[in-house]
Amino acid sequence: MSDLEQILMKMKKQSALLASLSGDTKNLALRKIADNLRKNKARIIEENLSDIKIAQSENLQDTLLKRLLLDDKKIEGLIEGVEDLIKLEDPTNKILAVTELDKGLVLTKKSVPIGVIGVIFESRPDALIQISTLCIKSGNCVILKGGREAARTNRILADIVVESIESVGEEFENSLYLLETREEVSAMLKYDKYINLVIPRGSNQFVSYIKKNSLIPVLGHADGICHLYVDSDADIDTAVEITFDSKTQYVAACNALETLLVNETIAGKFLPALKRELDKKDVVIKGDKKTKEILKDVEDATEEDWSTEYLDYILSIKIVKNVDEAIEHINKYGSGHTDSIVSKNSKNCDKFTALVDSAGAFVNCSTRFSDGFRYGFGAEVGISTNKIHARGPVGLDGLVIYKYILQGESHIVEDYSSGKKKFVHREIS
Amino acid sequence: MSDLEQILMKMKKQSALLASLSGDTKNLALRKIADNLRKNKARIIEENLSDIKIAQSENLQDTLLKRLLLDDKKIEGLIEGVEDLIKLEDPTNKILAVTELDKGLVLTKKSVPIGVIGVIFESRPDALIQISTLCIKSGNCVILKGGREAARTNRILADIVVESIESVGEEFENSLYLLETREEVSAMLKYDKYINLVIPRGSNQFVSYIKKNSLIPVLGHADGICHLYVDSDADIDTAVEITFDSKTQYVAACNALETLLVNETIAGKFLPALKRELDKKDVVIKGDKKTKEILKDVEDATEEDWSTEYLDYILSIKIVKNVDEAIEHINKYGSGHTDSIVSKNSKNCDKFTALVDSAGAFVNCSTRFSDGFRYGFGAEVGISTNKIHARGPVGLDGLVIYKYILQGESHIVEDYSSGKKKFVHREIS
Repeated sequence: MSDLEQILMKMKKQSALLASLSGDTKNLALRKIADNLRKNKARIIEENLSDIKIAQSENLQDTLLKRLLLDDKKIEGLIEGVEDLIKLEDPTNKILAVTELDKGLVLTKKSVPIGVIGVIFESRPDALIQISTLCIKSGNCVILKGGREAARTNRILADIVVESIESVGEEFENSLYLLETREEVSAMLKYDKYINLVIPRGSNQFVSYIKKNSLIPVLGHADGICHLYVDSDADIDTAVEITFDSKTQYVAACNALETLLVNETIAGKFLPALKRELDKKDVVIKGDKKTKEILKDVEDATEEDWSTEYLDYILSIKIVKNVDEAIEHINKYGSGHTDSIVSKNSKNCDKFTALVDSAGAFVNCSTRFSDGFRYGFGAEVGISTNKIHARGPVGLDGLVIYKYILQGESHIVEDYSSGKKKFVHREIS
Repeated sequence: MSDLEQILMKMKKQSALLASLSGDTKNLALRKIADNLRKNKARIIEENLSDIKIAQSENLQDTLLKRLLLDDKKIEGLIEGVEDLIKLEDPTNKILAVTELDKGLVLTKKSVPIGVIGVIFESRPDALIQISTLCIKSGNCVILKGGREAARTNRILADIVVESIESVGEEFENSLYLLETREEVSAMLKYDKYINLVIPRGSNQFVSYIKKNSLIPVLGHADGICHLYVDSDADIDTAVEITFDSKTQYVAACNALETLLVNETIAGKFLPALKRELDKKDVVIKGDKKTKEILKDVEDATEEDWSTEYLDYILSIKIVKNVDEAIEHINKYGSGHTDSIVSKNSKNCDKFTALVDSAGAFVNCSTRFSDGFRYGFGAEVGISTNKIHARGPVGLDGLVIYKYILQGESHIVEDYSSGKKKFVHREIS
């Protein structure tokens, strides 16, 4: 048996114990983490600087360096995040339903942790604290793999978390483990008998790779091809402002706008106004034929553009007849992430939210709101475009499942099969 | 593009429309199905007899023939089932949560259908009606594949369902499709871009095959290795009765007992009493060393037996020190399906339900209760040992997911990033 398998076996066993912990015990562990992060700030910053020096020597992009940086301010933000998480309700051991099946035979549906969760995350080391504290709060064991560039920072953060929670009690032993090599990730993916869920945070290709190479259920998003549809009666200024925010507020995010759909009756007025604004950020526009009749000097949008997540200062634009054509385009080319309509027509807005098959269907606001923190979930473990288990930004609720507890008084099934007894199925709560 | 892909494309498109149907429209479709099943009873029975004749000529086992048979009584049962389903609440378009993120910016979480579901089921043709009506009630499109032996019965049942729902309106077009060859199933598994969930009902091997050959999320159960633990203070008669029911009431079911764990202090009294009862059904007992000291003429239980789902009149027995050893054995060898304790000690019962990591943790009742009908779900689309999305018997609730609708008044994210505005995150409901 490999070292990794031994660790995973212990984790699986431990996960049963974690499920029965009280909210207070888990909050005590979170409190320790917050305190120890504060105490060890200097050491964390030192390790992070080592990572950054190596990254600089390897000519890492500036944007990635920014993500890698963990300074005093970011650590304070992390501590605040942990303190906010303490205030949230324990998502486990909630009674979801109670049904009397028959006299003395009572079925209780109760929320419980999922068990053992594998999370593979990008270069941002803050993610390690966010993910591990969400897992602790929800009573899950977690096996983590961070970006190679943040190796030293991740190591010290993981050590701090493990020391903190184990100081609370032995029930937290074997509940968090940091993988440090790619080989360990490949190995981990084989252990569907120990791991209940994998959350890969990263590119579309990466998520697909995980899905193809593991039998473990995967929670993730393939693509963030988000749309905004500007309806015929939209206020021009509002539409420009929402488009500008959706596209440029943070282009590298999965909830950034990629394709703009514009009603043909408003395009002539709206597009020139929009272009003036987008030019300020040098956004490259790719337009369909009708768009090009209105806007000069824009590139051709090809069929491929409608399915492309640019994550850059690029926007594809298509002119459509009406809300129906917009919805059809979104459901055909979109990735089910987040799509928004700008309109004063409440019928069209209702049609849009009812028929657009996405995790987020928005009205008169920016696509960039699709995010766990903005939704009020405290933080998110990822965003899902799956249509099972959890959809959209996934917070604590997405880290639990339920079990059924059936309490009887010597009840047997034969009595019901033979007709001697009958089920009553009375909802108690 | 293959014929199948064309069908699936249409289904995906249609699924957006189905999501917006009212409960009344869906109930009207179900009403039509019930009526048409009654009207066409003679034709159904005729087709079923053809299937049975062929099956008999191929020497199909008696138990399988029984499952294949669809007689007047079974059809009436199906019609009753559809009528019960009409009475259940619409699981879609339920408001699950409303949060004010800021003034005029309101987030609504609403239940919606999953979309397109593939279900591959066993020889029992009744399953076609149960599954398709559950999918209609929950607003899902469904692609079905039944057992080869029931080909003619499935064909007429599918025709009746399609005719019935399409008579209600064109919104039901392309919402149900019956596959008739294995090749079509293999082809279907590749279309993760159209199909959101596959539910394979069948053997462990079959479910594993599906998981290995598809990127579509799979809901199913690998194995049903169910346990019963008889605690030191259990009433002997009760324990015998519950064991007998769990093991023999229907041995081929996934919720039937496979391994019995017995507290060492009660084994001497309990096991001989149990054996007298099990002998009436010629149950073969496989015991560990200590069991064999008490019961003569029983076979050796090997390590392999603890992970074997017999689905037969065979029971493995192990003697354990206490409830902790029982829980450890269950979490190590069990399949997370259903496990039960017989005990008068409420502390041990609570420990058992808290620490046994299974979809069903039962107290003083038969494992055979783990079933959608018995739980009061109307019917079940399958039983899940997954630990995400849906666990245990899966009824209507397991066929829905949610979407987030965010209604704004020209809100943009930059105002919150810049600190100009702050989120309030006030729960409205």
